[in-house]
Amino acid sequence: MKKKRILSGMRPTGKLHLGHYVGALENWISLQNEYDNYHLIADYHVLTTRLETSDIYQDSIDMLIDWLAAGLDPEKSPMFRQSQIKEHSELHLIFSMLIAENRLKRNPSLKDQIRDLHIENVSYGHLGYPVLQAADILLYKGDLVPVGEDQLPHIEITREISRSFNRTYGEVFPEPESKLSVFARLTGLDGNAKMSKSLNNSILLSDEPAVVELKIKKAVTDPLKVRKGDPGRPDICTIFSYHKKFNPAEVPAIDRECRSGALGCAECKRKITTAINDFLAPFIEKRKELESRPDDVLNILHDGESRAKIVAAETMSQVRQVMRIG
Amino acid sequence: MKKKRILSGMRPTGKLHLGHYVGALENWISLQNEYDNYHLIADYHVLTTRLETSDIYQDSIDMLIDWLAAGLDPEKSPMFRQSQIKEHSELHLIFSMLIAENRLKRNPSLKDQIRDLHIENVSYGHLGYPVLQAADILLYKGDLVPVGEDQLPHIEITREISRSFNRTYGEVFPEPESKLSVFARLTGLDGNAKMSKSLNNSILLSDEPAVVELKIKKAVTDPLKVRKGDPGRPDICTIFSYHKKFNPAEVPAIDRECRSGALGCAECKRKITTAINDFLAPFIEKRKELESRPDDVLNILHDGESRAKIVAAETMSQVRQVMRIG
Repeated sequence: MKKKRILSGMRPTGKLHLGHYVGALENWISLQNEYDNYHLIADYHVLTTRLETSDIYQDSIDMLIDWLAAGLDPEKSPMFRQSQIKEHSELHLIFSMLIAENRLKRNPSLKDQIRDLHIENVSYGHLGYPVLQAADILLYKGDLVPVGEDQLPHIEITREISRSFNRTYGEVFPEPESKLSVFARLTGLDGNAKMSKSLNNSILLSDEPAVVELKIKKAVTDPLKVRKGDPGRPDICTIFSYHKKFNPAEVPAIDRECRSGALGCAECKRKITTAINDFLAPFIEKRKELESRPDDVLNILHDGESRAKIVAAETMSQVRQVMRIG
Repeated sequence: MKKKRILSGMRPTGKLHLGHYVGALENWISLQNEYDNYHLIADYHVLTTRLETSDIYQDSIDMLIDWLAAGLDPEKSPMFRQSQIKEHSELHLIFSMLIAENRLKRNPSLKDQIRDLHIENVSYGHLGYPVLQAADILLYKGDLVPVGEDQLPHIEITREISRSFNRTYGEVFPEPESKLSVFARLTGLDGNAKMSKSLNNSILLSDEPAVVELKIKKAVTDPLKVRKGDPGRPDICTIFSYHKKFNPAEVPAIDRECRSGALGCAECKRKITTAINDFLAPFIEKRKELESRPDDVLNILHDGESRAKIVAAETMSQVRQVMRIG
């Protein structure tokens, strides 16, 4: 039986952090044998909220290295930049005719972004973000798209566009489904609900042990637990949430001893530092190895782009045929 | 000195009529020696107001044959379809980030179209029509764009996008100017201010003499002039407006004899039928000759597309360089 196809992508924001791993990458890795995966470096998407592009290339390479270091297998799953495959913008243009402007304005994720980023005049392209995303997914005929809850409205727009195209011109596209299952968020070092590079509250997948140690030392814990002996509340503690993810074996003991006061925050932080550094060690080693052969990394990217292009061109050829545009 | 470059285009609506000739084609032909011309068959633009595409290919070929029969020289000026040059959609996507949605909604031509075509939900792509047009023009670094008055707001948007791109990423694009000069409208056979295929009030450039004769016979004239002898009002007569364009030598006599009643409408219509058929004769001959060698017509199109692609690819390479996207 043919494997189902998954399209998953990230904006290139440079080196990834633990939140990216827990929220997406870990999931992608677990899916790479069961499914036929396409991994998109969504560099054009960056422009929807930021016109500055000078870092996009290096950020894309850094993200790719993190993907590879984390265990994504480029033999199995092509990795490619949106900007290098012209068919993304072609299909985006065609799809732009198939959805009402009103429909895009009702997109709740857009409303959230406009509020969170204090955007006064949303750009035409920002409004069309879900149209480009529909092109990204449908160009590779993705059956499934792993997304966070905030992305569900976008996948619904992709499904609408797919139906509209098929109805108007003929059956070309699947109606992709969201794959929500494994997603989770990692709390930031500052206690913010989300680890995020722009909030400067993250541990990078590429952080050396000494850096991790320092970041953890500064991380917030239960503010009522000032010194060893004070009883702590693990359920509101950022560090405890990291233990649950990266040090599960010790969780019952830490929970007990934090509450009793027997375990101080300094000691607890040393434990999680060790656990995270152990977790990151093979990753950092693989990353260094990849950084030592940049040509190979570029070859992996270009190979992924060649393979993606073949699929993209085949889909566009079907699109042109049913639309009868030369 | 380097010739200035002109980008001019039409939507492929099939065989052209006299209104297209008087309103645009005649102007294009007169400009083809003085300027470096690029002639765009704007097939993607059709989708902004009509999703049906089954006729687009044949309509494009029919329009191309009319362009050639009217005297556009494919050696001098490449003729090409928007849909065949992926760079149009690439630049469109990039430009979509550089203009506010609000700005596009203020476009008066859009408001007119929404009213005239009774559009309930404008599509995202229809809203972005001027963004695609900006890409069409700037991809070839057009210095001038021959337009009708209703298109002036679009060229203003092109200029804004050009400035915005150059300011954000570096100087790549000119700021194109509108070339309004020679444009005129031809009255429809039914007296409507505009000759238009959809109003079924047009004389095609490819109409045979008998067809022209029949169409002219049915054309409206001054309703108060019922028979020969009645005094007529040339200034409100459709047929007289055609004499001014296609039979200027006889205009003073016709003006006088219509007013006096000496000239009847039937005779006046015979005169204009002869004049228009004389005008169309070389055109129809050339068209037949072109239709007899369809492969040559296709070669002309493909050659134009190859030449346009070279320019488009060169521009996109500059765009990618200043934006630093791989």
